[in-house]
Amino acid sequence: MTTPPPDLSGAVDMSHGGGGRAMARLIRDIFLRHLANPLLDQGHDATRIDAGSGHIAVTTDAHVISPLFFPGGDIGSLAVHGTLNDLAMAGARPVALTAAFIIEEGFPLADLDRIAASMGQACRAAGVPVATGDTKVVERGKGDGVFITTSGIGVVPAGVDIGPRRLRPGQAVLLSGPIGDHGIAILSKRQGLEFGTEIRSDSAALHRMVADMVAVVPGIAVLRDPTRGGLSATLNELTNAAGVGMLLDERAIPVRPEVAAACELLGLDPLNVANEGKLVCVCEPEDAETLLAVMRNHAEGRDAALIGHVTVGQPGFVRMTTAIGGQRVVDWLSGEQLPRIC
Amino acid sequence: MTTPPPDLSGAVDMSHGGGGRAMARLIRDIFLRHLANPLLDQGHDATRIDAGSGHIAVTTDAHVISPLFFPGGDIGSLAVHGTLNDLAMAGARPVALTAAFIIEEGFPLADLDRIAASMGQACRAAGVPVATGDTKVVERGKGDGVFITTSGIGVVPAGVDIGPRRLRPGQAVLLSGPIGDHGIAILSKRQGLEFGTEIRSDSAALHRMVADMVAVVPGIAVLRDPTRGGLSATLNELTNAAGVGMLLDERAIPVRPEVAAACELLGLDPLNVANEGKLVCVCEPEDAETLLAVMRNHAEGRDAALIGHVTVGQPGFVRMTTAIGGQRVVDWLSGEQLPRIC
Ligand SMILES: Nc1ncnc2c1ncn2[C@@H]1O[C@H](COP(=O)(O)OP(=O)(O)OP(=O)(O)O)[C@@H](O)[C@H]1O
Ligand SMILES: Nc1ncnc2c1ncn2[C@@H]1O[C@H](COP(=O)(O)OP(=O)(O)OP(=O)(O)O)[C@@H](O)[C@H]1O
Ligand SMILES: [Mg+2]
Ligand SMILES: [Mg+2]
Ligand SMILES: [Mg+2]
Ligand SMILES: [Mg+2]
Ligand SMILES: [Mg+2]
Ligand SMILES: [Mg+2]
Repeated sequence: MTTPPPDLSGAVDMSHGGGGRAMARLIRDIFLRHLANPLLDQGHDATRIDAGSGHIAVTTDAHVISPLFFPGGDIGSLAVHGTLNDLAMAGARPVALTAAFIIEEGFPLADLDRIAASMGQACRAAGVPVATGDTKVVERGKGDGVFITTSGIGVVPAGVDIGPRRLRPGQAVLLSGPIGDHGIAILSKRQGLEFGTEIRSDSAALHRMVADMVAVVPGIAVLRDPTRGGLSATLNELTNAAGVGMLLDERAIPVRPEVAAACELLGLDPLNVANEGKLVCVCEPEDAETLLAVMRNHAEGRDAALIGHVTVGQPGFVRMTTAIGGQRVVDWLSGEQLPRIC
Repeated sequence: MTTPPPDLSGAVDMSHGGGGRAMARLIRDIFLRHLANPLLDQGHDATRIDAGSGHIAVTTDAHVISPLFFPGGDIGSLAVHGTLNDLAMAGARPVALTAAFIIEEGFPLADLDRIAASMGQACRAAGVPVATGDTKVVERGKGDGVFITTSGIGVVPAGVDIGPRRLRPGQAVLLSGPIGDHGIAILSKRQGLEFGTEIRSDSAALHRMVADMVAVVPGIAVLRDPTRGGLSATLNELTNAAGVGMLLDERAIPVRPEVAAACELLGLDPLNVANEGKLVCVCEPEDAETLLAVMRNHAEGRDAALIGHVTVGQPGFVRMTTAIGGQRVVDWLSGEQLPRIC
């Protein structure tokens, strides 16, 4: 509250939901300003709460993806995976989910049934139940099919303390697999584009892989899933929060050839494109190989790679050694790139 | 899954969100069918989870109220109160909330700020923080201003076990105060009606009053807040779930004169009108006076009253001795009565 009051003369635009700088500013200027408290101020994918005897983690995400059904998933499985992943990013073992539905009048029951079935299947596959729900209906034209907000509760194993403040120069930056699949799958479906091979969303639950990683290396410094805003937003948020820099190696960052081609065609940088089944892990350099081996043991981490290191100086600056040997700044987008991507 | 598959040829209509029979059927036929698990099957305002060392409670509600600002509150304070109350109905001490916002493009920042400020104030007054949040934006015409989904986590004190299965014939049914204020306040504002005195929503947090009630009588059988669908839906749900009946005394049920007059004019039964700061408590008859005294000690329970008893037979039937001495069945509405009331 030491900063001057924000300018509130404008209106919300699509960029406020894009996962870039505009959203971060809206959250800071309005939500954090009024709701400030030590828990919220953790600012992580899930919040740790001291529940007396041990720590729990809690997280929430509204899902407004369009289209509702896409190659590799639908809003139901996405909502389950997204919330499981945010819990996993706190090193937590997911215990239960909640699911609140906002349904537009006229939405076909058969589609709602398909979405609920997909949620149920994702929950059973993950071994985590939906413990409670809610159902609201809004008039035609006041919603868009269905929005699903999932929250998640997890238990944080003793000794695990994951968070951006633990970033230190010299640490290794790992990525669990190729980037950009989810965003490109949604965009292709939405715009009716075809790229030879069908590009599928990477939507997947990462909590089992993370449980193995945490069991082997409890001292992992940071985990984060690069969703809206892509890898560039995730790494910029982290380095900003921690006051450190990062140096990446472009050639080490996996991108599927078909995704790279689609990005080229659409004028997108895969670093800015959303993922729903990937994680970034920052760890001590001596733990990197161990963690890569654990990840590669899981389907979700088969293509895990060391992509760079934390550096001193230039806090908040993520740089990258390019494929042709130069260096460039990896900025995060200010506006929105792909609206309604999750 | 022993019942035949439901008919899925139709579409969602406004009645599916009204808190009556149509909503209960939709939840059973689609959501519970696919998501079934022992936690969800508790079917209560908040779900108890055994977290190893003690029980936690978890709940969620999407808020789609229209208008966003109304006499006695706004969507922000309502979202906080509603979720605190659902936790309290499990006898839980609220620990933290989550808040996910779905905002329509073009929504004024000043209104968003006002809503966030109101949430912050409701949280501070309640002593419960928002621990984590989410911000999504949808295109103009794909939402309606702002929808807020809040989830809540609480700790259930040892020995407290509140739930419909604990209903027994002979128990007393208590109500914490006059009914219908919230629904009539919203309807008046929405339709620009004036009734002399302004009717204000009863939106309020009940967790402090409940904490005192539970401390004095840990053996309370059931607590429930009569929100959508009103007192009639709440009591019918309870008696249905427990296979018991109920006999109420109409003269004992408090209704403000201005609310009664408005209901008369609008052709509504106050028993069917939503409340956001009231609770129903079912307890052993010998505890009734003690609990009424505890409630009357709080502003939120000043007008608490004994309104009836649990009876044998006619499971699922709620009857009422009317003011003129007859008896009638208190049915719950099948369709929606007041859409977008919370
Ligand atoms: N409306 C809000 N009120 C309070 N805090 C918020 C709000 N929106 C976001 N936050 C906080 O901002 C941080 C970033 O949220 P964000 O939604 O970008 O993370 P995420 O859920 O990991 O990403 P995504 O939503 O793309 O999956 C989190 O700590 C979150 O709690
Ligand atoms: N979409 C859903 N999926 C699974 N369970 C649901 C869903 N909607 C509601 N339920 C369950 O049905 C029960 C009744 O929910 P309901 O929303 O009516 O209760 P409430 O939150 O106390 O009331 P209100 O929403 O009016 O405040 C709860 O146990 C809830 O968990
Ligand atoms: Mg995340
Ligand atoms: Mg998320
Ligand atoms: Mg509800
Ligand atoms: Mg309730
Ligand atoms: Mg509720
Ligand atoms: Mg989020």
